[in-house]
Amino acid sequence: MPQEASPHIVRSYEGELRRLREMIARMGGLAERQVADSAQALIRRDTDLAAEVVRRDAELDQMEREVEQFCVRLLALRQPMAADLRLIIAAMKISSDLERIGDYARNGAKRAIVVAQQSLISSLNGFERMSELVQENLRSAIDALVEEDAEKADEVWRSDEPIDGIYNGIFRELLTFMMEDPRNITAATHLLFIAKNMERIGDHATNIAERVHFVVRGEQVTADRPKGDDSASAVAGAPR
Amino acid sequence: MPQEASPHIVRSYEGELRRLREMIARMGGLAERQVADSAQALIRRDTDLAAEVVRRDAELDQMEREVEQFCVRLLALRQPMAADLRLIIAAMKISSDLERIGDYARNGAKRAIVVAQQSLISSLNGFERMSELVQENLRSAIDALVEEDAEKADEVWRSDEPIDGIYNGIFRELLTFMMEDPRNITAATHLLFIAKNMERIGDHATNIAERVHFVVRGEQVTADRPKGDDSASAVAGAPR
Repeated sequence: MPQEASPHIVRSYEGELRRLREMIARMGGLAERQVADSAQALIRRDTDLAAEVVRRDAELDQMEREVEQFCVRLLALRQPMAADLRLIIAAMKISSDLERIGDYARNGAKRAIVVAQQSLISSLNGFERMSELVQENLRSAIDALVEEDAEKADEVWRSDEPIDGIYNGIFRELLTFMMEDPRNITAATHLLFIAKNMERIGDHATNIAERVHFVVRGEQVTADRPKGDDSASAVAGAPR
Repeated sequence: MPQEASPHIVRSYEGELRRLREMIARMGGLAERQVADSAQALIRRDTDLAAEVVRRDAELDQMEREVEQFCVRLLALRQPMAADLRLIIAAMKISSDLERIGDYARNGAKRAIVVAQQSLISSLNGFERMSELVQENLRSAIDALVEEDAEKADEVWRSDEPIDGIYNGIFRELLTFMMEDPRNITAATHLLFIAKNMERIGDHATNIAERVHFVVRGEQVTADRPKGDDSASAVAGAPR
């Protein structure tokens, strides 16, 4: 006798996909907090907070493993098709991006501890602004996934350029400080890496936004990514 | 009448899994070449080669998309279980690592162009050695996947530490050069980022090795990753 379609199974599968979205949202929330605290630790010269960011990173690693295990189970048991399959693949890739974002935040926090022991060489306004923009993009990208909002994802995708702009400004300013006084070199070097980390976090938020677009629309973003980072070609003292 | 198990289908599915391994091997080969050429462009001050590395990076991006599409197709059509499912998931994650490795090689090549226009500030022996070790690890990790050799993968996993050691030495040396003469700052800054990129490429090779271990053995590497990079805490002039 053929079994009638079980609403229990169907509901449970939908529940699992909802749970997957929630896992990503929770992981995204923690990644965002790590980025925020890493920046605040730098700006307030708060080495305790920095140490906490370093410690908390293991949670993101653990969450990535949980997302992957959950996805593998879904693939094996539910044999998902089309939109569900896209969501599951995207969730695995997004969790890698979030784990990587966590690594950058942890690395930034470690460097913030060193910078706090050096004298202050410059205003950290650029860092604060950059960190806010990056957090905003990260939050919107994750919201776009939860709300299945491709337009919100596309907005994130377009707003990575101002972040690169701030990064380029910071990069040139720090090179100048190093030129002016060799005693600035240790702090400036770590600040350069912190800024680069933030810029890369922004790139990962853009990756996530691209993934979300694909999940919702079923097709890749086709336009070229707006890209404003030219620091790889920067020369100190060159015209700005 | 029940159809008998079709050897054609079976053979074709096995062929697809073999093809997936080949796609990763080909992508790994290109990533390795990009790392090698990026380092050679720096060492030989060869800006043409650097420009070629930058140009060629798009191929890796394209290959990552192809691997993903192929995997999604396999998941949808073949509904793989157990070891096959592990391989497919690993292939997707490994292709992300390889794409990222390509990004670091491209970024290094862009910086090599700037460094070539500055006067030579230090021997690049450390860079050459580091690049060789990183390439070796990358090649072994990919070979381990193709040969399903978990022990080879574990060797890679253990040999990331010397790479971090060279990186720490380069980091301290470059800080010293910057202190000595501000005219070194532009070149030294780009060299710092190039060294960091190589160190991160090494990390991604280690990620790949962990994945391969999991594919072959069906369980995660449990030991803590040996980690020798302490540059995030480095202070210029501190005891080595």
